[in-house]
Amino acid sequence: MSKGNLLSVREDVRVLDATMRDGGLCNDFFFTDKFVKDLYHNNIDAGVDYMEFGYKASKRMFPTDKFGKWKYCDDDKIREIVGDNNSPMKIAVMADVGRCDYKKDFRAKKESPVDMVRVATYINTIPVAVDMLEHFHKLGYETSINIMAVSKNRTEDIRAALDIFGQTPVNVIYLVDSYGSFYPEQIRDFSQLYLEYGDKYKKQIGIHSHNNQSLAFANTIDALKEGVSFLDCTVMGMGRGAGNCQSELLIGFLKNPKYMVEPILDQIENHMMKLKEEGVQWGFDIPYILTGQRNSHPRTAIDFLKRHRTDYKNLRLELLDME
Amino acid sequence: MSKGNLLSVREDVRVLDATMRDGGLCNDFFFTDKFVKDLYHNNIDAGVDYMEFGYKASKRMFPTDKFGKWKYCDDDKIREIVGDNNSPMKIAVMADVGRCDYKKDFRAKKESPVDMVRVATYINTIPVAVDMLEHFHKLGYETSINIMAVSKNRTEDIRAALDIFGQTPVNVIYLVDSYGSFYPEQIRDFSQLYLEYGDKYKKQIGIHSHNNQSLAFANTIDALKEGVSFLDCTVMGMGRGAGNCQSELLIGFLKNPKYMVEPILDQIENHMMKLKEEGVQWGFDIPYILTGQRNSHPRTAIDFLKRHRTDYKNLRLELLDME
Repeated sequence: MSKGNLLSVREDVRVLDATMRDGGLCNDFFFTDKFVKDLYHNNIDAGVDYMEFGYKASKRMFPTDKFGKWKYCDDDKIREIVGDNNSPMKIAVMADVGRCDYKKDFRAKKESPVDMVRVATYINTIPVAVDMLEHFHKLGYETSINIMAVSKNRTEDIRAALDIFGQTPVNVIYLVDSYGSFYPEQIRDFSQLYLEYGDKYKKQIGIHSHNNQSLAFANTIDALKEGVSFLDCTVMGMGRGAGNCQSELLIGFLKNPKYMVEPILDQIENHMMKLKEEGVQWGFDIPYILTGQRNSHPRTAIDFLKRHRTDYKNLRLELLDME
Repeated sequence: MSKGNLLSVREDVRVLDATMRDGGLCNDFFFTDKFVKDLYHNNIDAGVDYMEFGYKASKRMFPTDKFGKWKYCDDDKIREIVGDNNSPMKIAVMADVGRCDYKKDFRAKKESPVDMVRVATYINTIPVAVDMLEHFHKLGYETSINIMAVSKNRTEDIRAALDIFGQTPVNVIYLVDSYGSFYPEQIRDFSQLYLEYGDKYKKQIGIHSHNNQSLAFANTIDALKEGVSFLDCTVMGMGRGAGNCQSELLIGFLKNPKYMVEPILDQIENHMMKLKEEGVQWGFDIPYILTGQRNSHPRTAIDFLKRHRTDYKNLRLELLDME
């Protein structure tokens, strides 16, 4: 059952900018303060509803001399950018199952600038994810659960996962296309599946797409049409590998007059082109098509591009050999 | 009513490679013979059903010292590449209403290596297009009609056009997204509209998409799912402005085992990267998003990129002023 049309406004839509989190995977989270401050203000001006600042990664597991500060997202570092965040935009951070010290590194919401914690899990680590969600809700945060790599999972297992998360206090359950392998007709079907549990348990459904097959924007707006309401995007698509649904495409598409594309263009003009010139790599390219078509992790393609290889036929053979 | 699914083969599908025709608009049709011969053989190996060699443009109107030979597609020039074309792949050329001497420049099909003539028209030049179609059928050619820029036309006028062309001998009627402005849900609706007339008059329906909003592939496979069967693509998306649906995406997606993506990768490795290095410009980029979002001709964006401008916010204002 489609919701909305090309002329209407859907009041349940929430745009989440994940540039620093998914894009941070491309530059080890070394964003300048100027970049972050400008992104924060441009996102507010663009009408973005949530801005994800990065990960809350464990400093025991990930040495702080190897990564920029947005790998850890200390509250005081966020405060240096947002102050008391006197804006309608909420602040999100991501916590990966097995890669964070969640019992230690989060204060109560009322002491933190963070509004939402997004928990990322694989389907085989659900019990920890549930414990994390319950913990974050006790601390007073909104949460989402991002079940990654579901293109590799069986539908009955995904159903079981949705049923479990439906019974937690989580606010948003995300459909995540980790490998950029889903086609629009699959996204429409999966959206219906997730929405079935969303309706049952009163949860919002979100979508996080990757652009391996040049389908990140198409999949996002098709999911929206099905009824999905939390829409992830990144400026110029900056995200691991082929990157994500581009903010400039999504925000230019949405009909609610609160969304304005000009501030996103500002961020591109003043910052994103420079990152590209400095050699930070992301975005749609031939190797990602090949991993996307085979529903494979993008790491092979990322490595291929880092070595400046262009022997695409060999890459395709290597991918065949990996199955 | 959807036709086929992600696991099935649709025997009515025809893939048409338009690299030299739409891509020729990016380099004034100056392809090397090596490029063309390799593309011809790679297309055959990839299972491509039709290869479009270029335009049959008037030599009176377009001086031959300004363009490469594929702007004119003389039969003998095609023969130098394909010989007697002993292959399952058919040869196509495009004839633009008002830009060709169609009564003079086409011999009878039995004397020509060309199998299909594709007539490109705007909705206000239909009578000439009809005359051309009838002429080409008398000469023995297959034809298609490509009605351009329909995103600017009223539905009732498009219906009238489809009704007129349905009554001609044309074989294929193309849904053309000239400005890359259509979203998938519009493409699904328009596909149904075109298929209504296709069913009535026993015509195949085709789709020719542009990638301004990163939707060319998504729109093509959504149209396919609705029942559209002629699918245009270009290698690495080479085509005017933001380019087209990429052969490597489309052919990698189709399930019929006759379609093989490796030869397309070969063409990319050996030729397309070189064109890019030589400075030939095409493909998805921020300025095309802005013309696509506003349903505008891409010329403003093409000019913007030729001048190496990156002041996207100004471009957006200029586009607003043009309406």
